[in-house]
Amino acid sequence: VGKARRLPCVVCHKIWMVGAEDPRRLVHALKVGMALTLVSFLYLLEPLFKGVGKNAMWAVMTVVVVLEFTAGATLCKGLNRGLGTVGAGSLAFFIEFIAEKSGHVFRAVFIGAAVFLIGFIATYLRFFPYIRKNYDYGVVIFLLTFNLITVSSYRVENVLYIARERLYTIAIGCGLCLFMSLLIFPIWSGEDLHNSTVRKLEGLARSVEGCVQGYFQDTDANITREDSVRDPIQKGYRAVLDSKSSDEALALFASWEPRHSRHCNRFPWQQYVKLGAVLRHFGYTAVALHGCLESEIQTPRSVRRLFRDPCIQVAGEVSRVLAELAASIRNRRHCSPELLSDHLQEALQDLNSAIKSQPRLFLGSKNARPAAAVAAAAIAVPPNRKPDGEPHTGVALPSMKTDISALLEWKARRQQSAREPPERKALRPTLSKIAITSLEFSEALPFAAFASLLVEMVARLELVIEEVEELATEAGFKEFSGREDDV
Amino acid sequence: VGKARRLPCVVCHKIWMVGAEDPRRLVHALKVGMALTLVSFLYLLEPLFKGVGKNAMWAVMTVVVVLEFTAGATLCKGLNRGLGTVGAGSLAFFIEFIAEKSGHVFRAVFIGAAVFLIGFIATYLRFFPYIRKNYDYGVVIFLLTFNLITVSSYRVENVLYIARERLYTIAIGCGLCLFMSLLIFPIWSGEDLHNSTVRKLEGLARSVEGCVQGYFQDTDANITREDSVRDPIQKGYRAVLDSKSSDEALALFASWEPRHSRHCNRFPWQQYVKLGAVLRHFGYTAVALHGCLESEIQTPRSVRRLFRDPCIQVAGEVSRVLAELAASIRNRRHCSPELLSDHLQEALQDLNSAIKSQPRLFLGSKNARPAAAVAAAAIAVPPNRKPDGEPHTGVALPSMKTDISALLEWKARRQQSAREPPERKALRPTLSKIAITSLEFSEALPFAAFASLLVEMVARLELVIEEVEELATEAGFKEFSGREDDV
Repeated sequence: VGKARRLPCVVCHKIWMVGAEDPRRLVHALKVGMALTLVSFLYLLEPLFKGVGKNAMWAVMTVVVVLEFTAGATLCKGLNRGLGTVGAGSLAFFIEFIAEKSGHVFRAVFIGAAVFLIGFIATYLRFFPYIRKNYDYGVVIFLLTFNLITVSSYRVENVLYIARERLYTIAIGCGLCLFMSLLIFPIWSGEDLHNSTVRKLEGLARSVEGCVQGYFQDTDANITREDSVRDPIQKGYRAVLDSKSSDEALALFASWEPRHSRHCNRFPWQQYVKLGAVLRHFGYTAVALHGCLESEIQTPRSVRRLFRDPCIQVAGEVSRVLAELAASIRNRRHCSPELLSDHLQEALQDLNSAIKSQPRLFLGSKNARPAAAVAAAAIAVPPNRKPDGEPHTGVALPSMKTDISALLEWKARRQQSAREPPERKALRPTLSKIAITSLEFSEALPFAAFASLLVEMVARLELVIEEVEELATEAGFKEFSGREDDV
Repeated sequence: VGKARRLPCVVCHKIWMVGAEDPRRLVHALKVGMALTLVSFLYLLEPLFKGVGKNAMWAVMTVVVVLEFTAGATLCKGLNRGLGTVGAGSLAFFIEFIAEKSGHVFRAVFIGAAVFLIGFIATYLRFFPYIRKNYDYGVVIFLLTFNLITVSSYRVENVLYIARERLYTIAIGCGLCLFMSLLIFPIWSGEDLHNSTVRKLEGLARSVEGCVQGYFQDTDANITREDSVRDPIQKGYRAVLDSKSSDEALALFASWEPRHSRHCNRFPWQQYVKLGAVLRHFGYTAVALHGCLESEIQTPRSVRRLFRDPCIQVAGEVSRVLAELAASIRNRRHCSPELLSDHLQEALQDLNSAIKSQPRLFLGSKNARPAAAVAAAAIAVPPNRKPDGEPHTGVALPSMKTDISALLEWKARRQQSAREPPERKALRPTLSKIAITSLEFSEALPFAAFASLLVEMVARLELVIEEVEELATEAGFKEFSGREDDV
């Protein structure tokens, strides 16, 4: 009984959710109801019915079939319907004209042959990728109309008159659909595509950040929070990976839409599709990076923690760049590329030097050289306490050349990034604890893959930046001016 | 002039290609032509026309709209059309029944309100994912039919009679469509899904093999063959990555199809979709692996060559397993899991020991220890010449424990894989040339990523095997018996 009583609640909740997810659905449903009511006035109101007569049925059919969710889709379908109907009508009358003078039996054979041939050709045409993409519905309507006219012309005398009347009512239906979709609360495919691109960029930014945070999380926290962390990461890149078909459909519909606001000059929708492809390419790296989190072979957490800061910094920069790109597209302005890549290069350099500064980790033998431990200890001297004393410690071990150069690099980095938030510094001293751990190369492998994927990700990010820049140029976005939404 | 003369050739070639790509398209087009001709006989032949009258038009419309490429799609559309029509008819007559007794004006208002309400509800329903997926077309037809009947009932007296006649002709059209699609050269969605799954597995196998071959190719050969190598690699995994929507559509249609051959007992189509998802998951690793080929930071070829054999072996095993899985699905039989994973584990072990045997490579300092060179020389002794002399060489360097254990491991492997084809052995001595190269860790990073991705790939392959096994169980594939198509 309880279950039966809860069912209405569940159904209500679901109904509510569908509308709450995207309130434009409600608007669209209301628009369809309205359009249908208006078109049925052709039947219900005496003066209108006198004008169009029983053919008003075709206007009703047109409204049901043509009025789609977005303006572009409606335009596309309406134009396809119009073209298909007119084309089929012309062809049908041409055939009618040829068959007119012939005898009854010959005429039947002729019509049958024409129906077969046109049916065959039209169906075959639908397999051409270009036609399938742009004019599939038009070809169906062409076939439908052609058959109706040709076949009924065999029995009915005044086919030309009927067809013209029908065309009028179809035009009325199409006109009503266009009016509803273009002027009453219009829903633009282009807008959708634009927003989904922004959302994809933001989702990727969250994904990358979440991945790296998750990778360097402490063990105990990881177990409890795993599911809650994993879900948004997956959500972020899944939306990108699965976007191909919806992107292409939106771009197709958007290409039918007229420019509809002061922002939107003739938009290069194909560029959005290209950007989508590059984003998917980027997304594959995000998936692989996420795979590192879930892989069964793992580099020990203590070792990972060693590279925590530079990795998080790189990931932070990557997601910052993605967020900046998203903001630039959202606000329809150029982004500032030199600003973007500068920090990124720095972060990458940091990661590189962090990796170079710990070469002993990857020695692969159980007996770590004592010198390595000393060097590690030297690195571990808290840099904010005696920054000038370090070079001397380094000189005391002349054989450890690479370590010291790494150390110097590291120091330079510390000085330059002195403006950074203080919590970063508090984390540094923990390095000393694990620097002397020795490690099998095979154990280090997963981390190497992780780091390499991060680097690869930065390389692919360059492609994304390029495409966004191209989009900004082609779409005539306004110049980057203030730093109003820049961190 | 030349261009204009070449145009017909190009067009002809394109027309030919569309048919040659999939000859069933030609068959389908012929079937549509045939069905349309048959249905137009309702009009053209005197006795038939007497039976159905002008409503034959609805049969023509039904054939044009319902007859789809595959049997499942036709069944799905036909059933949707039938359900939608019957449902709409019932509702329309219910409303007609209510409004019957009322006055003329009230009736118009009532009909208008009903049209609005039903239009709103039906459109809103179409946004529910479940309905959108399974019954979208049915809801459109419902809306169409409901409006036609309700609106025309206002002016026409014998609506019930008209509707019944119309339903008959629609049933005739649907019946003809089902006859054509189920009995005349049927094209099955399930078959398509089955074959596309096999093709995807084979494509992935080629991709993985091509990737690894490309990675270890020599420089000069690489430049000339790059494009010809890259294309099939991309083709292999692209087909997998972009398969989501087509897979789901095929599975949906396949679920409508009756069992149609002795092989196909009630097929678990959802399992194919699940397998497709796992294959995409696997495909992401293939993309990342391919990314390693195209990455700008590269481990020197001389170093890569060091791991050439085990890597190629692992990749070879992976693609062999994929090919075996493809063959097992193609032949509708179980695959032999113990056979599959055994070789794979061996190959993985080999790769692991190869990586462990070269720890010095990743030392990160320019001054490689001479001992490493000696050890490398010891490794480089052609094992097929004096296999028993090696342990002594190893003992002469007591500090090199790991190298020797790696060496022993390697020897054991050599003995065990003595049955392998002889060209493998010829490749081994090249190891000696580059074993003494020292390498920055950052240079080794890309290879580490490559190796790690290979390992990850093997882990994901296990998931693929699992899903294929589950598919085999659920679909009742026959047991694995002979080794007729097993290497």
